[in-house]
Amino acid sequence: MSPPPLPATMTVVTIAAPGGPEVLVPATRPVPSPAPGEVLVKVEAAGVNRPDVMQRKGLYPPPPGASDIPGLEIAGTVVALGAGASRFRLGERICALVTGGGYAQYCTTHESTALPIPDGLSAAEAAALPETVFTVWSNVFERGQLKAGETLLLHGGASGIGTTAIQLAKAFGARVVVTAGSDEKCAACVRLGADLAVNYRTQDFVAEVKSFTAGKGANVILDMIGGRYIQKNYEAAAQDGRIVQIAFQEGAKAEVDFMRLMLKRLTHTGSTLRSRPVAEKAALAAAIVETVWPLVRAGTVRPVVDATFPLADAASAHARMDASAHVGKIVLVVE
Amino acid sequence: MSPPPLPATMTVVTIAAPGGPEVLVPATRPVPSPAPGEVLVKVEAAGVNRPDVMQRKGLYPPPPGASDIPGLEIAGTVVALGAGASRFRLGERICALVTGGGYAQYCTTHESTALPIPDGLSAAEAAALPETVFTVWSNVFERGQLKAGETLLLHGGASGIGTTAIQLAKAFGARVVVTAGSDEKCAACVRLGADLAVNYRTQDFVAEVKSFTAGKGANVILDMIGGRYIQKNYEAAAQDGRIVQIAFQEGAKAEVDFMRLMLKRLTHTGSTLRSRPVAEKAALAAAIVETVWPLVRAGTVRPVVDATFPLADAASAHARMDASAHVGKIVLVVE
Repeated sequence: MSPPPLPATMTVVTIAAPGGPEVLVPATRPVPSPAPGEVLVKVEAAGVNRPDVMQRKGLYPPPPGASDIPGLEIAGTVVALGAGASRFRLGERICALVTGGGYAQYCTTHESTALPIPDGLSAAEAAALPETVFTVWSNVFERGQLKAGETLLLHGGASGIGTTAIQLAKAFGARVVVTAGSDEKCAACVRLGADLAVNYRTQDFVAEVKSFTAGKGANVILDMIGGRYIQKNYEAAAQDGRIVQIAFQEGAKAEVDFMRLMLKRLTHTGSTLRSRPVAEKAALAAAIVETVWPLVRAGTVRPVVDATFPLADAASAHARMDASAHVGKIVLVVE
Repeated sequence: MSPPPLPATMTVVTIAAPGGPEVLVPATRPVPSPAPGEVLVKVEAAGVNRPDVMQRKGLYPPPPGASDIPGLEIAGTVVALGAGASRFRLGERICALVTGGGYAQYCTTHESTALPIPDGLSAAEAAALPETVFTVWSNVFERGQLKAGETLLLHGGASGIGTTAIQLAKAFGARVVVTAGSDEKCAACVRLGADLAVNYRTQDFVAEVKSFTAGKGANVILDMIGGRYIQKNYEAAAQDGRIVQIAFQEGAKAEVDFMRLMLKRLTHTGSTLRSRPVAEKAALAAAIVETVWPLVRAGTVRPVVDATFPLADAASAHARMDASAHVGKIVLVVE
């Protein structure tokens, strides 16, 4: 049985101009062709991420060679193979980290940054995995070297990255302290396994972390806030602590006293995912299949989907993310 | 032949009060007894270091348990063994990293932070080694992970640490760019093997490093300056670069834009030597005997002694360090 022929055009969501959620509008574009090593995916669901919001606001231009259509992760079915692509068969269901173009009915991905969808996951759940799992594995476990018995301090515990990081860190035997912006979000984090959730609007996370760790501090800190948090992270970190910066929601500039960095022998580092070469993402994907996928298949780590929206209503999905009341991932579903 | 009996008292140099070089005055103190695991050394020479200057100014109190007498490295002869000390024999010539008390005729050291004096080195040369070699090995090679073919940017190239780091980095196949404060110091660094020496008073080290590395930047930066250099280091660093902070001669506070840290995936870290537990210093000493000592014995790495002063004239030694015109190490010689 040969697959149905591919249409020439598809519905996508584009950014009409930099601005609020309303600038996200449906449009018609040609269905892309997979380049060598790529596969074409008929998208069933696409995750919504903070970088999409930054891109919508005009603050995060796509890297050279990437689609101008937003969307960094997808789940769906392989419907065409580029030259030399051999990892997946036509008709196989995969989820993938993509460099852009996820808000669309069809999207190409390099085969080495795609992963088989673990059994039992819906398309929306599968689309909620790649960005958070790649980010958490790469930054908490590879760069941050979190070990069993250590304490992870996780800012934005209720975010997509946060909800994944809580589950993964617990699965690997670490203790987890999170910060979140409401008592409801804190409660959700504790339900997911966090040992302590700090409401940053009413509590001082430095004091709470120190108290939780008997004065020692956190061994690894995953931070997407920046700004005033940078100094506070240096204070909350343990001797030989690692602080990994994955975004700067409060800005990248700060007046900092680096004395603690030296005296505690801290490591302050960071990374972004989107701009990394395919080979590095492929190595990450291989590590994830080996270390994280078994936990997802076993149900130990479950994607937390906050809400789904139809692709054409991406504007509402972004409005929900802008409101920051969600817990877990916001996902677009393609009919 | 039994060793001569030890005197009850010795001449030391103490800090009469926080202040300029003139506060360093000779005094008489009891000869210390080696604690378990320690040896007593009849000091022939003691290195002078920046932390001694900070301590003299009252800005760097000795850690708990350490002598109030300045001096962090010595060379001399083992004249008494503490309980259980078995690494060195009486009469053996050693150099050692000590937690204080080096400006004295006798000084105790834990045996595990002492090293045999390589053949052919004078006491002054041997006393010039421990602080710089421990610091460079620990920070450039262990924390900074400098590899053959990479570029090291070294601030303070003409300092004791700088002159050692130039030779060691070259011996291990790296390229070395240094900064220094005069054309004479730059020339001295080039004679020691530096590939490029930047006079920071007349040249912009960020531009020079970029130009030297064809735009790539430095893979490892060893910094004891801090202040305005922190941002400049982020600019001068290569993708995946490591910046290791070992002091803050221009202050530890700075207004910094951390965006480059994340986008380049930099690692900003640091350490101090004096406060580390004996076990860590012992591990360093073991690594140094294996990796650095053969290079010293072969003459590939030679301590650079700028000047020697009699112990009683420690004030003049500090005045020379305060003037910052020296190249290499300033050493006190004990008659």
